[in-house]
Amino acid sequence: MVKSPVKEGIDRDWGKVISEIHVKEEFAAGLHDIGSFSHIVVIFEMHQANFSPETDLIRRPQGRDDMPLTGIFAQRAKHRPNPVGITSVRLLGVEGNILRVQGLDAIDETPVIDIKPYFPQYDRMENAFTPEWVDRLMKDYF
Amino acid sequence: MVKSPVKEGIDRDWGKVISEIHVKEEFAAGLHDIGSFSHIVVIFEMHQANFSPETDLIRRPQGRDDMPLTGIFAQRAKHRPNPVGITSVRLLGVEGNILRVQGLDAIDETPVIDIKPYFPQYDRMENAFTPEWVDRLMKDYF
Repeated sequence: MVKSPVKEGIDRDWGKVISEIHVKEEFAAGLHDIGSFSHIVVIFEMHQANFSPETDLIRRPQGRDDMPLTGIFAQRAKHRPNPVGITSVRLLGVEGNILRVQGLDAIDETPVIDIKPYFPQYDRMENAFTPEWVDRLMKDYF
Repeated sequence: MVKSPVKEGIDRDWGKVISEIHVKEEFAAGLHDIGSFSHIVVIFEMHQANFSPETDLIRRPQGRDDMPLTGIFAQRAKHRPNPVGITSVRLLGVEGNILRVQGLDAIDETPVIDIKPYFPQYDRMENAFTPEWVDRLMKDYF
Protein backbone atom coordinates (compact mmCIF):
# COMPACT_ATOMS: atom_id res chain seq x y z
CA MET A 1 0.00 0.00 0.00
CA VAL A 2 1.27 3.48 -0.90
CA LYS A 3 1.39 6.23 1.72
CA SER A 4 1.71 9.50 -0.15
CA PRO A 5 1.21 13.19 0.61
CA VAL A 6 -0.69 13.32 -2.71
CA LYS A 7 -4.34 12.43 -2.23
CA GLU A 8 -5.76 13.19 -5.67
CA GLY A 9 -4.95 11.78 -9.10
CA ILE A 10 -4.14 14.85 -11.15
CA ASP A 11 -1.60 15.38 -13.93
CA ARG A 12 1.37 16.97 -12.21
CA ASP A 13 5.11 16.74 -11.74
CA TRP A 14 5.65 13.77 -9.43
CA GLY A 15 9.43 13.84 -9.64
CA LYS A 16 9.99 15.36 -6.22
CA VAL A 17 7.18 13.57 -4.38
CA ILE A 18 8.47 11.40 -1.56
CA SER A 19 6.22 8.58 -0.47
CA GLU A 20 6.27 5.26 1.34
CA ILE A 21 5.37 1.73 0.38
CA HIS A 22 4.13 -0.39 3.25
CA VAL A 23 4.61 -4.09 2.61
CA LYS A 24 2.47 -6.64 4.44
CA GLU A 25 4.32 -8.12 7.40
CA GLU A 26 4.02 -11.60 5.96
CA PHE A 27 6.02 -10.52 2.89
CA ALA A 28 8.48 -8.17 4.63
CA ALA A 29 11.28 -10.77 4.46
CA GLY A 30 11.01 -10.51 0.67
CA LEU A 31 12.65 -7.06 0.92
CA HIS A 32 15.92 -8.63 2.09
CA ASP A 33 18.83 -6.73 0.46
CA ILE A 34 16.60 -4.53 -1.69
CA GLY A 35 18.57 -1.60 -0.27
CA SER A 36 21.51 -2.59 -2.46
CA PHE A 37 19.58 -1.28 -5.48
CA SER A 38 19.33 2.43 -6.25
CA HIS A 39 16.01 2.16 -8.08
CA ILE A 40 12.96 -0.10 -8.02
CA VAL A 41 9.99 -0.66 -10.28
CA VAL A 42 6.65 -0.36 -8.52
CA ILE A 43 3.59 -2.08 -9.98
CA PHE A 44 0.31 -0.84 -8.61
CA GLU A 45 -3.41 -0.82 -9.14
CA MET A 46 -4.75 2.59 -10.17
CA HIS A 47 -7.75 1.96 -8.00
CA GLN A 48 -9.61 5.18 -8.77
CA ALA A 49 -9.29 4.87 -12.54
CA ASN A 50 -12.23 3.74 -14.61
CA PHE A 51 -12.00 2.87 -18.27
CA SER A 52 -14.78 3.76 -20.65
CA PRO A 53 -14.24 2.52 -24.24
CA GLU A 54 -16.11 5.45 -25.81
CA THR A 55 -13.82 8.11 -24.37
CA ASP A 56 -10.65 6.27 -23.39
CA LEU A 57 -9.82 3.71 -26.09
CA ILE A 58 -8.64 6.51 -28.37
CA ARG A 59 -8.04 9.92 -26.80
CA ARG A 60 -5.73 12.93 -26.76
CA PRO A 61 -3.02 12.55 -24.09
CA GLN A 62 -4.00 14.54 -21.00
CA GLY A 63 -7.06 15.73 -22.91
CA ARG A 64 -4.94 18.44 -24.53
CA ASP A 65 -6.09 19.90 -27.85
CA ASP A 66 -2.52 20.09 -29.08
CA MET A 67 -2.04 16.32 -28.69
CA PRO A 68 -3.00 13.83 -31.43
CA LEU A 69 -5.73 11.21 -31.12
CA THR A 70 -3.80 8.23 -29.76
CA GLY A 71 -4.68 4.69 -28.71
CA ILE A 72 -4.71 3.92 -25.00
CA PHE A 73 -1.87 1.38 -25.45
CA ALA A 74 0.26 4.11 -27.08
CA GLN A 75 0.01 6.47 -24.10
CA ARG A 76 0.42 6.30 -20.33
CA ALA A 77 -3.06 7.54 -19.32
CA LYS A 78 -4.53 5.92 -16.23
CA HIS A 79 -7.99 5.00 -17.55
CA ARG A 80 -6.94 1.69 -19.15
CA PRO A 81 -8.69 -1.64 -19.74
CA ASN A 82 -6.52 -3.06 -16.93
CA PRO A 83 -5.63 -0.16 -14.61
CA VAL A 84 -2.12 -1.29 -13.73
CA GLY A 85 0.54 1.37 -13.26
CA ILE A 86 4.29 0.82 -13.41
CA THR A 87 6.79 3.42 -12.33
CA SER A 88 10.53 3.31 -11.83
CA VAL A 89 11.55 5.29 -8.76
CA ARG A 90 14.57 6.08 -6.63
CA LEU A 91 14.79 4.00 -3.49
CA LEU A 92 15.73 6.35 -0.67
CA GLY A 93 15.63 3.94 2.24
CA VAL A 94 14.27 0.78 3.79
CA GLU A 95 13.15 0.32 7.36
CA GLY A 96 11.51 -2.96 8.30
CA ASN A 97 8.54 -3.37 5.98
CA ILE A 98 8.56 0.25 4.78
CA LEU A 99 10.27 1.58 1.65
CA ARG A 100 10.82 5.28 1.13
CA VAL A 101 10.85 6.30 -2.53
CA GLN A 102 11.00 9.40 -4.69
CA GLY A 103 8.91 10.05 -7.80
CA LEU A 104 6.11 7.55 -7.37
CA ASP A 105 3.02 8.79 -9.25
CA ALA A 106 0.52 6.88 -7.15
CA ILE A 107 -1.89 8.55 -4.76
CA ASP A 108 -2.26 7.78 -1.09
CA GLU A 109 -3.69 4.32 -0.34
CA THR A 110 -2.92 2.90 -3.79
CA PRO A 111 -2.65 -0.91 -3.59
CA VAL A 112 0.79 -2.20 -4.61
CA ILE A 113 0.83 -5.36 -6.72
CA ASP A 114 4.56 -6.03 -6.95
CA ILE A 115 7.99 -4.50 -6.39
CA LYS A 116 10.98 -5.37 -8.58
CA PRO A 117 14.55 -4.15 -8.55
CA TYR A 118 15.48 -1.92 -11.49
CA PHE A 119 17.90 -3.86 -13.71
CA PRO A 120 19.49 -1.51 -16.27
CA GLN A 121 20.13 -4.58 -18.43
CA TYR A 122 16.35 -5.23 -18.63
CA ASP A 123 14.77 -1.86 -18.09
CA ARG A 124 17.06 0.65 -19.71
CA MET A 125 16.45 0.62 -23.45
CA GLU A 126 19.12 2.06 -25.70
CA ASN A 127 18.07 4.15 -28.69
CA ALA A 128 14.39 4.23 -27.78
CA PHE A 129 12.44 6.80 -29.78
CA THR A 130 9.00 8.27 -29.28
CA PRO A 131 6.71 10.45 -31.42
CA GLU A 132 7.22 14.21 -31.14
CA TRP A 133 4.16 14.80 -28.95
CA VAL A 134 5.82 12.91 -26.10
CA ASP A 135 8.57 15.52 -25.90
CA ARG A 136 6.01 18.31 -25.83
CA LEU A 137 4.05 16.51 -23.11
CA MET A 138 7.14 15.85 -21.02
CA LYS A 139 8.56 19.34 -21.40
CA ASP A 140 6.40 20.54 -18.53
CA TYR A 141 7.59 17.80 -16.21
CA PHE A 142 11.32 17.33 -16.73
CA MET B 1 -2.17 -13.18 -25.28
CA VAL B 2 1.43 -13.97 -26.20
CA LYS B 3 2.21 -16.20 -29.16
CA SER B 4 5.80 -17.33 -28.75
CA PRO B 5 8.04 -20.06 -30.16
CA VAL B 6 9.13 -20.65 -26.52
CA LYS B 7 6.78 -23.07 -24.78
CA GLU B 8 8.58 -23.60 -21.47
CA GLY B 9 9.59 -21.17 -18.74
CA ILE B 10 13.30 -21.73 -18.35
CA ASP B 11 16.13 -19.29 -17.57
CA ARG B 12 17.60 -18.46 -20.96
CA ASP B 13 18.64 -15.61 -23.20
CA TRP B 14 15.38 -14.15 -24.51
CA GLY B 15 17.02 -11.25 -26.33
CA LYS B 16 16.62 -12.69 -29.82
CA VAL B 17 13.22 -14.33 -29.33
CA ILE B 18 10.59 -12.89 -31.66
CA SER B 19 7.01 -13.28 -30.57
CA GLU B 20 3.56 -11.82 -31.11
CA ILE B 21 1.01 -10.19 -28.87
CA HIS B 22 -2.58 -10.71 -29.93
CA VAL B 23 -4.88 -8.01 -28.60
CA LYS B 24 -8.61 -8.68 -28.24
CA GLU B 25 -10.56 -7.27 -31.18
CA GLU B 26 -12.59 -5.04 -28.87
CA PHE B 27 -9.39 -3.29 -27.74
CA ALA B 28 -7.55 -3.27 -31.09
CA ALA B 29 -8.35 0.42 -31.64
CA GLY B 30 -6.30 1.14 -28.52
CA LEU B 31 -3.18 0.31 -30.55
CA HIS B 32 -3.70 3.39 -32.74
CA ASP B 33 -0.29 4.96 -33.49
CA ILE B 34 1.64 2.60 -31.22
CA GLY B 35 3.89 2.01 -34.23
CA SER B 36 5.43 5.45 -33.70
CA PHE B 37 7.25 4.07 -30.64
CA SER B 38 10.37 1.94 -30.94
CA HIS B 39 9.82 0.09 -27.67
CA ILE B 40 6.88 -0.94 -25.50
CA VAL B 41 6.49 -2.24 -21.96
CA VAL B 42 4.51 -5.46 -21.74
CA ILE B 43 2.76 -6.37 -18.49
CA PHE B 44 1.73 -9.99 -18.25
CA GLU B 45 0.58 -12.69 -15.91
CA MET B 46 3.21 -15.39 -15.35
CA HIS B 47 0.44 -17.93 -15.36
CA GLN B 48 2.58 -20.99 -14.71
CA ALA B 49 4.43 -19.50 -11.74
CA ASN B 50 3.49 -20.49 -8.22
CA PHE B 51 4.82 -18.77 -5.15
CA SER B 52 5.65 -20.72 -2.04
CA PRO B 53 6.77 -18.59 0.94
CA GLU B 54 9.09 -21.27 2.33
CA THR B 55 11.28 -21.48 -0.77
CA ASP B 56 10.58 -18.26 -2.68
CA LEU B 57 10.35 -15.37 -0.21
CA ILE B 58 14.13 -15.44 0.22
CA ARG B 59 16.16 -17.41 -2.30
CA ARG B 60 19.31 -17.42 -4.39
CA PRO B 61 18.70 -15.88 -7.85
CA GLN B 62 18.25 -18.66 -10.41
CA GLY B 63 18.96 -21.14 -7.61
CA ARG B 64 22.68 -20.64 -8.18
CA ASP B 65 25.07 -21.42 -5.32
CA ASP B 66 27.24 -18.44 -6.22
CA MET B 67 24.34 -16.02 -5.72
CA PRO B 68 23.47 -14.52 -2.31
CA LEU B 69 20.26 -15.17 -0.40
CA THR B 70 18.03 -12.35 -1.64
CA GLY B 71 14.44 -11.27 -1.03
CA ILE B 72 11.92 -11.91 -3.80
CA PHE B 73 11.34 -8.15 -4.19
CA ALA B 74 15.08 -7.65 -4.73
CA GLN B 75 15.23 -10.05 -7.68
CA ARG B 76 13.31 -10.72 -10.89
CA ALA B 77 12.38 -14.37 -10.26
CA LYS B 78 8.97 -15.44 -11.52
CA HIS B 79 7.61 -17.16 -8.40
CA ARG B 80 6.33 -13.98 -6.73
CA PRO B 81 3.41 -13.20 -4.41
CA ASN B 82 1.72 -11.53 -7.38
CA PRO B 83 3.08 -13.20 -10.54
CA VAL B 84 3.11 -10.13 -12.75
CA GLY B 85 5.92 -9.77 -15.26
CA ILE B 86 7.03 -6.54 -16.92
CA THR B 87 9.41 -6.45 -19.83
CA SER B 88 10.53 -3.68 -22.14
CA VAL B 89 10.84 -4.93 -25.69
CA ARG B 90 11.51 -3.70 -29.20
CA LEU B 91 8.38 -3.23 -31.25
CA LEU B 92 9.08 -4.68 -34.69
CA GLY B 93 5.71 -4.17 -36.30
CA VAL B 94 1.96 -3.81 -35.94
CA GLU B 95 -0.68 -5.42 -38.11
CA GLY B 96 -4.30 -5.03 -37.07
CA ASN B 97 -4.56 -6.40 -33.54
CA ILE B 98 -1.16 -8.14 -33.64
CA LEU B 99 2.13 -6.70 -32.39
CA ARG B 100 5.44 -8.30 -33.32
CA VAL B 101 8.12 -7.83 -30.65
CA GLN B 102 11.68 -8.90 -29.88
CA GLY B 103 12.97 -9.98 -26.45
CA LEU B 104 9.75 -10.80 -24.64
CA ASP B 105 10.48 -13.33 -21.87
CA ALA B 106 6.96 -14.72 -21.75
CA ILE B 107 6.06 -18.22 -22.89
CA ASP B 108 3.44 -19.11 -25.44
CA GLU B 109 -0.15 -18.39 -24.34
CA THR B 110 0.85 -16.00 -21.54
CA PRO B 111 -2.06 -13.64 -20.76
CA VAL B 112 -1.20 -9.98 -21.35
CA ILE B 113 -2.49 -7.49 -18.78
CA ASP B 114 -1.44 -4.19 -20.33
CA ILE B 115 0.76 -2.64 -22.99
CA LYS B 116 2.39 0.76 -22.51
CA PRO B 117 4.70 2.79 -24.75
CA TYR B 118 8.28 3.02 -23.48
CA PHE B 119 8.90 6.64 -22.40
CA PRO B 120 12.63 7.21 -21.83
CA GLN B 121 11.64 10.10 -19.54
CA TYR B 122 9.79 7.67 -17.25
CA ASP B 123 11.46 4.34 -17.82
CA ARG B 124 15.11 5.07 -18.42
CA MET B 125 16.78 5.69 -15.07
CA GLU B 126 20.09 7.52 -15.05
CA ASN B 127 22.84 6.38 -12.69
CA ALA B 128 20.99 3.26 -11.53
CA PHE B 129 23.23 0.86 -9.65
CA THR B 130 22.77 -2.76 -8.69
CA PRO B 131 24.65 -5.16 -6.40
CA GLU B 132 27.57 -7.02 -7.95
CA TRP B 133 25.71 -10.32 -8.30
CA VAL B 134 23.43 -8.79 -10.92
CA ASP B 135 26.38 -8.24 -13.26
CA ARG B 136 27.49 -11.84 -12.77
CA LEU B 137 23.95 -13.08 -13.43
CA MET B 138 23.54 -10.93 -16.52
CA LYS B 139 26.94 -11.75 -17.96
CA ASP B 140 25.52 -14.90 -19.51
CA TYR B 141 22.70 -13.05 -21.22
CA PHE B 142 24.05 -9.77 -22.57
